[in-house]
Order: sequence, then structure tokens, then C-alpha cells
Amino acid sequence: MTTTTVTLSPQAQAFEKLLGAGLTPPNEIEAVRIGAERLHLAASEPEGVTYREVDAKGVPAIWVQPKVADNAFVLLHAHAGGSVTTSAAVDRKLAGHIATAAGIPALVLDYRRAPEHKYPAQVDDVEAAFEWLLSQGYAAKNIVTIGHSIGGFLSAAVAIRLRDAGKELPGAVVSISPWCDLQIANPAIEANAGTDKLLTRALLEFFRDAWIGGTGIAFDDLRINLNLTDLSGLPPTLVSWGTYEILAGEDEIYAERLKAAGVATEVLPVAGAQHSYVWAAGRVPESDAAIAHIAKWLRSTLPIKPKAQ
Amino acid sequence: MTTTTVTLSPQAQAFEKLLGAGLTPPNEIEAVRIGAERLHLAASEPEGVTYREVDAKGVPAIWVQPKVADNAFVLLHAHAGGSVTTSAAVDRKLAGHIATAAGIPALVLDYRRAPEHKYPAQVDDVEAAFEWLLSQGYAAKNIVTIGHSIGGFLSAAVAIRLRDAGKELPGAVVSISPWCDLQIANPAIEANAGTDKLLTRALLEFFRDAWIGGTGIAFDDLRINLNLTDLSGLPPTLVSWGTYEILAGEDEIYAERLKAAGVATEVLPVAGAQHSYVWAAGRVPESDAAIAHIAKWLRSTLPIKPKAQ
Repeated sequence: MTTTTVTLSPQAQAFEKLLGAGLTPPNEIEAVRIGAERLHLAASEPEGVTYREVDAKGVPAIWVQPKVADNAFVLLHAHAGGSVTTSAAVDRKLAGHIATAAGIPALVLDYRRAPEHKYPAQVDDVEAAFEWLLSQGYAAKNIVTIGHSIGGFLSAAVAIRLRDAGKELPGAVVSISPWCDLQIANPAIEANAGTDKLLTRALLEFFRDAWIGGTGIAFDDLRINLNLTDLSGLPPTLVSWGTYEILAGEDEIYAERLKAAGVATEVLPVAGAQHSYVWAAGRVPESDAAIAHIAKWLRSTLPIKPKAQ
Repeated sequence: MTTTTVTLSPQAQAFEKLLGAGLTPPNEIEAVRIGAERLHLAASEPEGVTYREVDAKGVPAIWVQPKVADNAFVLLHAHAGGSVTTSAAVDRKLAGHIATAAGIPALVLDYRRAPEHKYPAQVDDVEAAFEWLLSQGYAAKNIVTIGHSIGGFLSAAVAIRLRDAGKELPGAVVSISPWCDLQIANPAIEANAGTDKLLTRALLEFFRDAWIGGTGIAFDDLRINLNLTDLSGLPPTLVSWGTYEILAGEDEIYAERLKAAGVATEVLPVAGAQHSYVWAAGRVPESDAAIAHIAKWLRSTLPIKPKAQ
């Protein structure tokens, strides 16, 4: 056995760094990311789904293709994680479950994360992926923007940005456990502290600082608060949350404000469910029942006609 | 917004526990597991592969099905992790790459882990899955036992156990970066300490204690040392390792002992590669070249005839 020096590919050098980071995270951000990345374990493998890594106008993403689908439609999916943590890989399986239930493929984004990339990099990336889908021949009205937690904010924020620019809107928006109040002021933050097993005020503040801190943007800025900004003219929107999560209060207000703004709104509170309950797709009956409801609403809102691929 | 008490499904309660464990691991074992679980990020998504969760005679597993494959054959795959860490989920993508290259499906096992389940639970589980494949109609000679790190040990250990019991053997064994020396005595443990970015003597001792500690089994016991036990009569075997890893020395000895025992042996040292370089399947050219070599050897050793599914 002899060891000699070898010229490694750049990819092999990147792999060496990944190997070294697991047991001794270089900083708190990476430690939190490593802890969050295993959340993919909550979901089961959906059957009959294939995956393909794509570059959506500079945004890395996973194309999620069910065996039976209407490929004229697509779910543009933004993951959770407070702008800092998780990834397309964490959401691959749950997106496969939603895509299979709805009968349309999904594009699951690895948008840029904070604190390396502050607001509005995440909205920019969802918009870039939306434009990429248009360039691939998808009609705007056949694109569903969907996401949970901060991804639930992003799925709405991109529609608001398109509306403000006078551009064609997505055909529907699905916001699951969306983060609507960057002032972190809703009473449910305290009232549900005992039932929420993941989120805390401290964690929300950690994410907010990573995402907004240093940008000069006020916490009550309309651009980052769905519960302050104008919601009129948005596409049909489904809002869902778990009643045990600390975002339940602001999500309920968001749904009411959508209705008041004249948006066709479907409201789906899930009794006893946690923040981002979709993580448990395929394993938790309560999550699967909610996903079935979301899929049924999509098929009643859009003319989806799934067929075998 | 009101919170009421809800009767949760057992699965929803399990999801609550998973959510809570990420940021504050309950103990050192779980902290190491959480750190290791993100190793799945090293591999890319293989295209055209579907997945299905199965119960292989009590062993949870993922069935990995390439689009073009000879379904008369199967790879029985055991993941790495020193008996304590990682999972079938971590190896799903890399198993998909190997399965696609070889043109046969793979069964990726979630065997029981230590310290909750000490040796020989892991060998028992691989054997149970082997028997399950026989019960599903697979001929023993059409099963390839494959694995890396402790999974590389397991892929050989199950063949040794079947040989000793006078049962039919797998058609081939693939051991990548196998752990062959539980005495942790090979000079490469020190000589390669500077180039191995993951393994250390301390980590190997941590794993050994979790796996063997308290069983009364001596570290030089033949059952846990491929470099002490009789290797005669084993099926054609491919042994591979990265020259930068601290197991390189014992893996080279293992390959020599296989040859000396009269086993048809293919030896594949990968220059400059890390322990379990297959984790980086689809992203690192050196890993992909080695996987192509393994697949070519399998197709030359077994009469595999892949066809579209």
C-alpha cells in the first residue's frame, strides 16, 4: 500500500469538502443546514416517479415526472427552510406525491439561500424559473406556483411581482404554512408555542436576520409581508396550514385577506398538523388527506387531463 | 385562530418526533446520524429510475428500478456507516447509478443499526433479504451482493455464511472500501490519516464499540475479520477502494487473500479517491469511471441482458 499525490477533479475536491463537513460543521449556519437536511426522511418514496436534474435559467432544480400526468401543466415548487436551510432534495419525495396526486409534473427549485444570498434572491430565482418554463413552451396559466413555509411566501410573492409588472400570471397558487408576517407579531407565535414541534420565535428571528438583516429593508416592508401588501388580482389560491403551528394565526389572516381582496380562495386548515406537514407525505394519513384535497382543488381549478407517459 | 386538542395518528406523532430532533439531537449517536444523513447530497439524481419501498422479510428496503434492465438479476445493496449511521435513503441515488450502469435493478437495505442492534443483526438482515429475493423467484446465482464500508464487509460476510451453511451462493460479490480489519491495526490507518477526509482511528473505534462492544466477541474473531477468515469457495469478487482512505491497506490485503484463496478476483484501487467514493456517483468523474468499471465487470461475469421495461 503506497499513497501518491493525485490530481483530483474539481468535483472530487468538492466531495472531499462535503465529507469533512458532516461531523464538524464549520459554523452555526452549516450545523442548522445539516440538521434540517434529514427532514427528507419524513416522506416515503412515491412510486412510478422519475427524476432529472435541470438548470432552470441558472436555478438548479429537480424535474419530478409522474408516470401518469398532463405534461401541459407543471408545479413550480419552492421548498421550506426560512431562506437558510433544506433543499430541492428534501422536497423531492413530497413533490412526487403532490405531482402524482395532481397528475402533473413538478419543478423543484434549489433557489439561492441566505445569508449568502439575501432577499430578494429567492424571489428572483422563482421568477427566473417561471420564465424558464415559459421559454420551454409552458403557458403561464398552466403553471402552478407552490411552496411551503418561506416557499409558501415565495409562491405568492412571485405572482404579486408578475401582477405588478403587468405580466401573465400563474394559473393557481398553493401556499402551505406560508410565512406571512415578518414582524413576527401574531398572537399564535406564543399561543401555539407548546404544540409546534419545530418552529420557535427564536428560530424565526434567526431566519429573518439571515434573510433580511443588513439589507436595510424594514420588517413591515410590503415586499416581505403578505399580510400587509395588496392581494387583489391574484390567481386562484389555496392556503393551508397546520393548526398546531405557530404560523397558524398569520395564515388564517392571509386567507381572510385573500378573500377580502376578491381572490378565489380555498382554505385548508389541517387539525393537529405541524408546520410544513407535507414533509410527511406518504407516511402520515393527515398529510396525505390534505395533499389529496390540494390535488382535487387543482384538478377542479385547471383543465388537467392526466395520461400515461 | 384557536388551538384544540386533536387525536393524532401514530405516524403523525412519529413525524413530530423527527421534527424536534434535528436542531437538538437527543444524544451523540443521533447527532452523528444526522450529520451523516446528508451524505446523499454528494450523488446526483440518476435519470429514468423509479423507486418503491418494500419489506424484504422484515427488512425495510428501497427497490431501485432502471428503465433499461435485466430483471432476472438484482443487486442486493448494503450501505455504509460503520453499523451506526446512514440509510437506504443515503444510497438510493448511487445505487440507481450502479443499477443503471450494470443494467439490473437494486434492492437497497435499511438493515438494523447499532448500538440498538449489535452484531450480527446486520448480517442477519442481509441474509433475510437474500432469502426474500429467493422467495420472489430470483436464482441465487443471479443475485449480486454489493456494499461499501461496513456494507462491503456485509456483502462478503453473507456469502461466507451461506458457504458455511452449504447453501447456494450469490453469483458475484462487490465490496467497495470494505472494513476488513476490526483490530484497526493496518499501517494505512496512520499513513493515510492526512489524506482521508472522513475516517479516523477514533471514528472507527466509535463504530466498533457501537457494533461489537458488549457482545463478548473479540476484535480478532474470524466472523468480523475478512482478513483473518477463510475466503475459499467464494463467488467472483470485485474489491475496490480509494487510495487516499485509511482502509486502503486492509483492502489491498483482502484482495490478495481472495486471490490466494483461489477466488476469481477483480481489483480496483481508485487513485486519489476517498472512502466510499461511490457516494459521489453522477457528480465526480473518478467515481463514475470506477462505477463504469464495476458495471463492465458485472456484465462480463454474469449473463446480463438488459432490455427496456
